[in-house]
Amino acid sequence: MYKVTVIGSGNWGSVAAKLIACNTVRLDSFHDEVRMWVFEEKLPSGEKLTDVINKTNENVKYLPGIKLGKNVVADPDLENAVKGANMLVFVTPHQFVEGICKRLAGKIRADAEGISLIKGMEVKKEGPSLISNLITKQLGINCSVLMGANIANEIAMEKFSEATVGYNQNKSAADRWVQLFCTPYFNVTAVQDVEGVELCGTLKNAVAIAAGFVDGLEMGNNTKAAIMRIGLKEMMTFSKMCFPSVKDSTFFESCGVADLITTCMGGRNRKVADAYARNGGKRSFDELEAEMLQGQKLQGVLTAKEVHEVLSSRGWLHIFPLFSAVHAISTGRLPPSAIVKISEENLRHVQLVSSL
Amino acid sequence: MYKVTVIGSGNWGSVAAKLIACNTVRLDSFHDEVRMWVFEEKLPSGEKLTDVINKTNENVKYLPGIKLGKNVVADPDLENAVKGANMLVFVTPHQFVEGICKRLAGKIRADAEGISLIKGMEVKKEGPSLISNLITKQLGINCSVLMGANIANEIAMEKFSEATVGYNQNKSAADRWVQLFCTPYFNVTAVQDVEGVELCGTLKNAVAIAAGFVDGLEMGNNTKAAIMRIGLKEMMTFSKMCFPSVKDSTFFESCGVADLITTCMGGRNRKVADAYARNGGKRSFDELEAEMLQGQKLQGVLTAKEVHEVLSSRGWLHIFPLFSAVHAISTGRLPPSAIVKISEENLRHVQLVSSL
Repeated sequence: MYKVTVIGSGNWGSVAAKLIACNTVRLDSFHDEVRMWVFEEKLPSGEKLTDVINKTNENVKYLPGIKLGKNVVADPDLENAVKGANMLVFVTPHQFVEGICKRLAGKIRADAEGISLIKGMEVKKEGPSLISNLITKQLGINCSVLMGANIANEIAMEKFSEATVGYNQNKSAADRWVQLFCTPYFNVTAVQDVEGVELCGTLKNAVAIAAGFVDGLEMGNNTKAAIMRIGLKEMMTFSKMCFPSVKDSTFFESCGVADLITTCMGGRNRKVADAYARNGGKRSFDELEAEMLQGQKLQGVLTAKEVHEVLSSRGWLHIFPLFSAVHAISTGRLPPSAIVKISEENLRHVQLVSSL
Repeated sequence: MYKVTVIGSGNWGSVAAKLIACNTVRLDSFHDEVRMWVFEEKLPSGEKLTDVINKTNENVKYLPGIKLGKNVVADPDLENAVKGANMLVFVTPHQFVEGICKRLAGKIRADAEGISLIKGMEVKKEGPSLISNLITKQLGINCSVLMGANIANEIAMEKFSEATVGYNQNKSAADRWVQLFCTPYFNVTAVQDVEGVELCGTLKNAVAIAAGFVDGLEMGNNTKAAIMRIGLKEMMTFSKMCFPSVKDSTFFESCGVADLITTCMGGRNRKVADAYARNGGKRSFDELEAEMLQGQKLQGVLTAKEVHEVLSSRGWLHIFPLFSAVHAISTGRLPPSAIVKISEENLRHVQLVSSL
């Protein structure tokens, strides 16, 4: 019998709990109860968030109007929430993972399996810091990832969508994650490529900045499709150069091309970059983020900066004209129109390297 | 010295002539003059179309406002237009190719190379009838193709875009085509996969019908991205099952993912399918085509029908849930909402087969 705990209860975490809860009830191999660790908050009414979730089966703060399932139990105590669980779903903001793992070390089952739904790893000079890898290292457990074109509110409304599980070696664990998440409106596929799947979830944000520039410059559908395609190719090439085990086919999965499409069509990265280009780069990203995102920082701008550091320290800049341009434009060193001034020679280089 | 003739002078043909003309002037290995065969028409002013093109350097009927280059010479006489040419660019409506080839047989240079820019082949029961193949058979010349995310008017305005040349064996001919079409705003890449590249240009239209249904049902970005991704996978699987030499990597090129994105975002297939779904399938495609396209038929509906015949005669229906659904919906046998009722087992089948 498998026992699941969801660590995190934001918008996406709550939707994940809903998906999981409907399957644990339906399938015999899982305990019905799904525990969800909730960072306790006091609501304006004076009630505690966990109490309200457990009373109403609704996360009234982060996913109002959606029933999570009666078998979801909110728990404000992290250690208690994971007690007895052998399937741990990580779905917190990425900056909290390390602290959570430290608190959990030595307190989880030795046979537990983890899965990370967290997008937005840090790309350090020495290479991308996979969150799945952090979890494995800190907790000594195997960790898969689940990524895809997953706007949480659309899945909450049971609109058809897909996701990809990336796993390392343990195929039977991956199949179990697929079982746990799959519903008739949420189709999940497993691929043996945890690095490729996880990198997609981060790198796509830098491409969405480029797509936003094209929108802001009103360059039309051809140009936007071209920029998205070049971005997808650079995501693939960068991932393969960092982790030679990464597979091309991963980029045809939901985590690859589909998530890229969703992110380049909607989403905050695209939107703020659009505004940046419309203003001719005269208002900085800092200023626009303060105005449009209440001061939250854009993942794509950050990722482009981090990727740029890797590229320049390794002498790879010429192989990644799009990533390089996104960074140069977002820091004001080039005008937004530079996004389409990617030279032929550079593109041919991308072509050459990614076909190796 | 290479001498180029463009056979066709519609919207896309005129843009192709413009791209080519700027390169033949610039590059020493090509004759400056580009001959363009024009199906002669009398304009409302009483003048002949060829005369006006040759006087103004503008195709006032099909690409008004754009200078083609002084070295483009319109010629109403097909045989005369190809005289001495050893690079033939085919860019007519697909239903005219066979007739044109019949008229040209025996009248072209033996060392000529062809390239087809024509999208929308017929998919017969015995398999797809490649237009490149038709040209090769009828004229005894090698024939490449050029496909991509190419909305003609956007390229005419010199907005950045990309295309893919698909070739058979002759790499040096392919490189010459790339030279002939490439400009700083039009980036062309060659891949050795004529079948894959040409099939993309046709099959994408059936996927655009599916994307239009999703738009009409207002299902959101997740669902649309998922449907586009499944469509891309089915395009790939179908192409490989028809022509085992087709390469996965072709679908990462402009002809694949980029053209699919453009076609699913704009374009008439998407638009009419959107209207069909908004009307709950109660107004037929015939009716909507009459109203929205002045009676022209939608390529995507036609292709879905032809593909369906291949699938059912070969027992492949279960491997292509999206193509099958598009046909069933567009013929009124299923409601538009069936586009997302693609069963998990079917999707797993696509996965399995396309990973072979």
